[in-house]
Amino acid sequence: MQIADIIRKKKQGQELSKEEIYFFVNGYTSENIPDYQISALLMAIWFTGMTKEETSHLTMAFVESGDTMDLSAIPGIKVDKHSTGGVGDKISLIVLPVVSALGIPVAKISGKGLGHTGGTLDKLEAIPGFTTEIKLEDFISYVQSSNVALAGQTGDLTPADKKFYALRDVTETVDSIPLIAASIMSKKLASGSDAIVLDVKTGEGAFMKDLEHSRKLARTMVEIGNHLGRQTVALLTDMNEPLGREIGNANEVMEAVEILKGKKIKGLYDVALEISSYMIWLGGAAGSHEEARPLVEEVIHSGKALAKFRELIKNQGGNPAFIDDYSLLPQTRNSQEILADQSGYIKGITATDIGYAAMHLGAGRQTKEDQLDYAAGIHLNKLVGDKVEPGDVLCVLHFNDKDPASAAKLAKKAFIIGEAPPAHESYILDVIVE
Amino acid sequence: MQIADIIRKKKQGQELSKEEIYFFVNGYTSENIPDYQISALLMAIWFTGMTKEETSHLTMAFVESGDTMDLSAIPGIKVDKHSTGGVGDKISLIVLPVVSALGIPVAKISGKGLGHTGGTLDKLEAIPGFTTEIKLEDFISYVQSSNVALAGQTGDLTPADKKFYALRDVTETVDSIPLIAASIMSKKLASGSDAIVLDVKTGEGAFMKDLEHSRKLARTMVEIGNHLGRQTVALLTDMNEPLGREIGNANEVMEAVEILKGKKIKGLYDVALEISSYMIWLGGAAGSHEEARPLVEEVIHSGKALAKFRELIKNQGGNPAFIDDYSLLPQTRNSQEILADQSGYIKGITATDIGYAAMHLGAGRQTKEDQLDYAAGIHLNKLVGDKVEPGDVLCVLHFNDKDPASAAKLAKKAFIIGEAPPAHESYILDVIVE
Repeated sequence: MQIADIIRKKKQGQELSKEEIYFFVNGYTSENIPDYQISALLMAIWFTGMTKEETSHLTMAFVESGDTMDLSAIPGIKVDKHSTGGVGDKISLIVLPVVSALGIPVAKISGKGLGHTGGTLDKLEAIPGFTTEIKLEDFISYVQSSNVALAGQTGDLTPADKKFYALRDVTETVDSIPLIAASIMSKKLASGSDAIVLDVKTGEGAFMKDLEHSRKLARTMVEIGNHLGRQTVALLTDMNEPLGREIGNANEVMEAVEILKGKKIKGLYDVALEISSYMIWLGGAAGSHEEARPLVEEVIHSGKALAKFRELIKNQGGNPAFIDDYSLLPQTRNSQEILADQSGYIKGITATDIGYAAMHLGAGRQTKEDQLDYAAGIHLNKLVGDKVEPGDVLCVLHFNDKDPASAAKLAKKAFIIGEAPPAHESYILDVIVE
Repeated sequence: MQIADIIRKKKQGQELSKEEIYFFVNGYTSENIPDYQISALLMAIWFTGMTKEETSHLTMAFVESGDTMDLSAIPGIKVDKHSTGGVGDKISLIVLPVVSALGIPVAKISGKGLGHTGGTLDKLEAIPGFTTEIKLEDFISYVQSSNVALAGQTGDLTPADKKFYALRDVTETVDSIPLIAASIMSKKLASGSDAIVLDVKTGEGAFMKDLEHSRKLARTMVEIGNHLGRQTVALLTDMNEPLGREIGNANEVMEAVEILKGKKIKGLYDVALEISSYMIWLGGAAGSHEEARPLVEEVIHSGKALAKFRELIKNQGGNPAFIDDYSLLPQTRNSQEILADQSGYIKGITATDIGYAAMHLGAGRQTKEDQLDYAAGIHLNKLVGDKVEPGDVLCVLHFNDKDPASAAKLAKKAFIIGEAPPAHESYILDVIVE
C-alpha cells in the first residue's frame, strides 16, 4: 500500500477502504508517513469529504491507536454528554448531578478550554480543593458509589487523534465535518460509555456558524455513534449569545448552583433541561425525553440534584461549603461596569466578543500554556430582549491583574442595541435522533 | 502575514496577492515555512486553481528565487522551444539547426529524460565527444558566432521551483495546470529568451492525456508568457503514438539527421515543420508561420540546416563524422525482433509502452541516478496504418546487457492490430496564439 495512491484516490473523491484508512492513521502515528503527505491528504478530505463508512473507520482507527476505558465494572447504561464548545456553557455542571441523582451512571471525561470557549475541567477546578486528576480505579469507584465522576483524560486515549488534530490545527483543515466527527466520536468511544448525548452549539459564538453545517456534523456523529454500537442523540442548541449571565469559571459554577437551587435562568435552564431529558431517556429511566422532563424538575425541586453535586465535589477533594456561601469561591479585586450609551432593546450579545473579553481578563487561555485566573470573568446584567436606557449597566468585568481595556472594548462592542426587541428564537434548534 | 491565512484564502477559492505568493514561495525556499503547510496549500491550489495573475506571480517568484541568464549580449530576437515530453521526441534536434540556419539565434537550455520520455540532452550526448556542460560565456559566444547552442542548466536557475516540484512529486499535486505552467514558464523565463514556442504533447503517451486539459495548460502558459513580456505560442501535438520510427538516444539522433537530409518521415516531419515555422515567425524572419514553411523546406533542401547541425556539434566538442557514417554512433551487441501473430492493420502503437520498453532496454532512466546506454533503443518497423501479416516484424529491440524480456512484452503489447486501418488523425491538434 502506498500513501501516494491513497492521496490520489481521495483527491479524486473515491472512497477509501478500511485498510487504507488504518494504513495512513497508523503510518502517521508511528511516524512512518511524513506530515507533508498527511497534510495533503487532510486537505483532499477537506474538499471531497468522507462517507459514513470512511468516517467510522477513521474513528475506530483513532480509538484503537491508544488505551480505551473499561467501564464494564459499572452496572447500568453509562450515559456520556459532549458539547462542541460555547461561551458560558456550564451545562455539564447542571446535567451531571441531575442525571446521576436519577440513578443513571455518568462517567464523564472532560477537557480544558482554549480560545473564546471555556472547558468544564477549568470551571470545576475553580472550586477550592476539587481535582479532576484522579486514577482510573477511583474514577470507576466514584461512579459505582455515587453514579457520577468527572475527570480529565486518564491513560493514553486516542493518541492518533491528538497527532492528527495538531497537524490540522496548522494546516487549515480543522473545519472538516468528517474530521471533526471522527475526532469527537473517537474520544467518546474510547472513554467507554454506552450512550452519548451531543450538544452541537450553533451560531456566531460556536465553531459551527450555521444550522446547515451544524445539522450535517450532528447527523454524521449520530450515524457514527449508532453505527459503532453506541446509542447517540444530538441536540443543536443556540450559541448566538452566551449561555446564562455568567462567563468565566468560579462565577459559572455559582450560576450552575443557582439552577440546581431552582432558578430558571432563561436559555441556560432550557438547554440543561433538554440535555438532561435526553440523557435520562437514553439511560433508561424514562420511556421518552418528554417523560423525562418532569423527572428533571422533580429532582431539582426536591434538592436531590444539589445533594448529588455536593457528593461529586466531596468525592473529588472539593469543599462544597461554597454552595451556601459563594464568597468561599475565588474573588477578584477589581471590577468595571460597561454602560449603555443609547436607549433601546438588546437585539444581540455577540458570544465571540464576550468569550474573548473573558479570555483577556484571565478567564480563558490564548495558548495551552496560559494560567487561568478562576475568579476572573464577566457578569451580564442585561440579556437579549431587555430594555436599556443610557447609563444602564450592560455587564460587569471582574479581574485581578489584567489590563481590562481590550476586554472592555470587546464587551461594549458585543451588545447590539436596536429600537425594537428581537423576535424570540428558540434555544433548541433541532434534535437529531437516528 | 501568516501562512495559515494564505491556506485558508486559497481553500476558499480566493485570489492570493503578489505579496502572499512571494511570502509562501520565499518562506518555503528559505525553510521558514514547513513542508506540511506548503503541501496543504498545494492541495488547496490543486482543487481551486489559480488566476492568470496568481500564476504569473508564482512564475516570477520562482524566477526571482535564483539566477537568471543574461542573453542581452546576443543581438536579435532569441527564440526558445520547449516540449512537455514525449516518446521519440527528437524535434529539438531538427528545429534548432533549421531555425538558426535562417539567422535566428537559439540559446536552448535543455533537460535530461526521466521515466518513459527521453531528454534532448541525453540524445545529443550519444554523439561521441559532444558535451552540454559548457560555461555561460562559451554558450553565449556560440550563439553569437553560430546562432545556436544547447546546454544543460548553467547556474542556479529557479531553485524554488525545484523545491516545490520535489514536494508536489510526493503529495499528488503534480497534475495541477497552474503549478505545471508556473514550473515550465519559470525555467523558460530564467533562461532569458525573448520568444517561446511550446510543444504541448497530448494523448496517451503524454503527461496531458486529453485535448481539453492540454488546451487549458497551453492557454495558461501562453497567457503567462505574454503577460510577462515574452511572445509565446503553444502547439498541441499528438502523442498517442511515438514520434518517428526511432526511440532511444543514438538512433534518435540518426533519425533527426535523416530529416535534415530531406527525408519526410510522417508525424515527425510534420511536427518539426510546424514548430520551426512558428519559431521563424516569432524570430522575425517571416511575416507569418505560413510564410515560414517554404523557408524550412528550402533550408533543409539546400543542406544549410545540416551544415548548421555539424557546426553545433563541432562547437560543443562532438565529432560530426557520424552524419555520413552512422556506424560511428554507439552500437548494441544484441537485437530482438517482435513479430506480429495476426493479420490486419496497425490501429495504434501505445507510446507509453514503447517508452517504458526502451527504458527497460537501458535507453531511459527509472531514477535520476540510472546510467544510460546510448545505443539501446527500439526501431519501429511498422507505423500506425500499416498492413501486417503474421510473422511480419513489428519492431526491433536493440540492447547490450539488459534482459529484454519485459521490454519485449511491453513492445508486443504496444501494437494494437485491428481489421481496418484507423482514420487518419492530425499530428497538430491545435495552436494557441494570444
